[in-house]
Amino acid sequence: MALKKTPVKGTADMLPADVRLRQHVIGMIRESYSKYGFMEIETPVMEHIENLTSNQGGDNEKLIFKIMKRGADLMRALDKGSDLADSGLRYDLTLPLARYYANNKDILPAPFKALQIGNVWRADKPQKGRFRQFTQCDIDILGDKTNLAEIELIGATSDMLCRIFSEFGIKGFTVHISDRRLLISAALSAGFTEEEIPGVLITLDKLDKIGTDGVRAELIESGASEETVDKYMSIYERYSDRENAHAGAKDEAGRVLEFAERLGSLEDGAAEGLSEIIRCADAMTDDSVSIVFDPTLVRGMGYYTGTIFEVTIDGYGFSIAGGGRYDRMIGRFAGNDTPACGFSIGFERIITILKDTEQGVPGISSDNLAVLIDKKVTGEDKIKILREAKSLREQGRTVVVQPMQKNMGHQIQMLEEQGYTEFRKVWNDKD
Amino acid sequence: MALKKTPVKGTADMLPADVRLRQHVIGMIRESYSKYGFMEIETPVMEHIENLTSNQGGDNEKLIFKIMKRGADLMRALDKGSDLADSGLRYDLTLPLARYYANNKDILPAPFKALQIGNVWRADKPQKGRFRQFTQCDIDILGDKTNLAEIELIGATSDMLCRIFSEFGIKGFTVHISDRRLLISAALSAGFTEEEIPGVLITLDKLDKIGTDGVRAELIESGASEETVDKYMSIYERYSDRENAHAGAKDEAGRVLEFAERLGSLEDGAAEGLSEIIRCADAMTDDSVSIVFDPTLVRGMGYYTGTIFEVTIDGYGFSIAGGGRYDRMIGRFAGNDTPACGFSIGFERIITILKDTEQGVPGISSDNLAVLIDKKVTGEDKIKILREAKSLREQGRTVVVQPMQKNMGHQIQMLEEQGYTEFRKVWNDKD
Repeated sequence: MALKKTPVKGTADMLPADVRLRQHVIGMIRESYSKYGFMEIETPVMEHIENLTSNQGGDNEKLIFKIMKRGADLMRALDKGSDLADSGLRYDLTLPLARYYANNKDILPAPFKALQIGNVWRADKPQKGRFRQFTQCDIDILGDKTNLAEIELIGATSDMLCRIFSEFGIKGFTVHISDRRLLISAALSAGFTEEEIPGVLITLDKLDKIGTDGVRAELIESGASEETVDKYMSIYERYSDRENAHAGAKDEAGRVLEFAERLGSLEDGAAEGLSEIIRCADAMTDDSVSIVFDPTLVRGMGYYTGTIFEVTIDGYGFSIAGGGRYDRMIGRFAGNDTPACGFSIGFERIITILKDTEQGVPGISSDNLAVLIDKKVTGEDKIKILREAKSLREQGRTVVVQPMQKNMGHQIQMLEEQGYTEFRKVWNDKD
Repeated sequence: MALKKTPVKGTADMLPADVRLRQHVIGMIRESYSKYGFMEIETPVMEHIENLTSNQGGDNEKLIFKIMKRGADLMRALDKGSDLADSGLRYDLTLPLARYYANNKDILPAPFKALQIGNVWRADKPQKGRFRQFTQCDIDILGDKTNLAEIELIGATSDMLCRIFSEFGIKGFTVHISDRRLLISAALSAGFTEEEIPGVLITLDKLDKIGTDGVRAELIESGASEETVDKYMSIYERYSDRENAHAGAKDEAGRVLEFAERLGSLEDGAAEGLSEIIRCADAMTDDSVSIVFDPTLVRGMGYYTGTIFEVTIDGYGFSIAGGGRYDRMIGRFAGNDTPACGFSIGFERIITILKDTEQGVPGISSDNLAVLIDKKVTGEDKIKILREAKSLREQGRTVVVQPMQKNMGHQIQMLEEQGYTEFRKVWNDKD
């Protein structure tokens, strides 16, 4: 039977140059976060199907690649018409982290600063730049209820991004920061009910795309009164234009307090905590990084309970990192709540941006040597060449030893493309 | 609903110390092979179900984790009683490599030296030390029909193992080398038929465990004549005891020619080629590595067509690496045959061995600083601390900034266990 040459739909083979770039960036991520005391962990790619499908999000369930039961279990399930799958591929790194922490918390430090770099799988409709298998990179601080968690996450991530971007000649990005409690308080103070809030936030999240008028129209259409919508929009009026907010605001931390003042019931200390996060994050980053208060920031995931943040970069219509505080998720596994705050880095999006730069993919080391040997070279002559190659490798050089091909010109050209700059041709002297 | 805290059966959570050791070893593997010109590639973890189940091996099929079709495709399959799975998790790195090469060969160099490090999944019965998700590390040379491929694979792998083992104080290992054509020729010359050979080799492979008498008895039991079995055993007599073979043999390469001489029809040049591989591999490795000719070496996989090799280490009853030449596998994908030779490194087994050493798991860098700050420290004081931490990180130190806990003694003890040696406690001066 003929076998299929192409990878499974929505997945891709990584060529050597791809892997080189990705490994280089992963190395920088690891080094950068380790300086902040983050410790790398790894979870299995498979998770219990019950865990994967219990998510509050709901929408993710359709995206799960389910793994079939095997042997007698499968027979029984087919017989009874019960669930055919017992596990599935993880669709993010947050749920596995929550399970991992619940399973291992007795032997982990507190607070625990975790770094994860791994693949996740989503049965999304494949499209340009969106794959069904892709790499995520998450950092999380578990067990720290103070805003030091947010500050360290934002500081460490900005530092990491600065290092990577500066190597590729990219200058500047923006960190948008807000708090989910501000979003809820704003909606309530305008007159929306608790039940209406999720829908209202989905609409507000479109502000970038459909503008103030679009948001207003969509809210009215969904049944809200003109009065409520007017009041709601007026809260955001002076903050809706992110460009202006960014350019004009001298004191982002001050704007938080100003915004909070217009709202009704807000948890004690929420605005002050957020204001301090912004001040400290700003102090930890250089001028190429803009730290802005962005009250229109929504972040989709329902599990966030406090601070939320997102990183954008000029010229790209997507965020390159995002996260927030989710104090009530770990408890679903561990039994008792554990404060948690995390940042998910859009690894694939960063790779896309780096590939767009002039530097592009970093080359392999130059000064590489290729030894081409004729097939008639045998015995002691061959041994001598191999020993010499080994000793050059010990000195740090990359050396390939290859059979000499008929079309040596083509062979050398191929090697040059791979970074080989020196060539030694070895024939049998006795010829 | 209560969620499951433990990982899926047969898989494990990797603690920070595990990941540190594994990443350290992976880094050494990468660096070592790159000096030999191997280029790292990556394939998706999912493969088409047809590819996974078409394997000549056959036995692997039961071990596949199958991924269910989704949406309308799944409905249709349930309706028609057709296959419910459209893909599965790869169970090795060889089949994906063959598909990858067929898919990309026009843009890959020839010969192509590939390095793969990745997880594979097998629905084996879990047992101590055997997991359902584990890491493999394969190197392969595709497109080189000369024995330079074998020599480079064995030389590079010995070099890599030496570097890793010497760092952990482990001395010495043995590389067993043979050729599948010798095995076949030996069985034929004793009087077995072509059809009997697979069964005969399965029995011969048990020599280590059941001894010469056990092999003899099992062959007789399976219906072979005494005469054939006597003749067969006499071929192996002087080679069956690996200990002796190793200790006594001054000239492993010469023993190949001697062994081949006793056989009937052997492909021209096969013995000479093998003999040269052994001579060259020996010359490329230092005295702590024994390169031995081992005519009783079988290697299970049916796809090998020539040289086969395996690495063992004293004190462990398993091989730590194995491979061989498989010239007819790529053709099943690519249409036309491509010479191929590969070495699969038992990554998990090497990790097991390293963990048994005194050095054990490498610690994180020492000279780490922990800054513990009281919750009353805010504003400019907090900013000053954060800035200082950042500047120390820029100088290369690992610094954590944590909220001071009530039980500071316990907090410091935990940090010491993680490699922190310096502690700064910050209170609010104005208190």
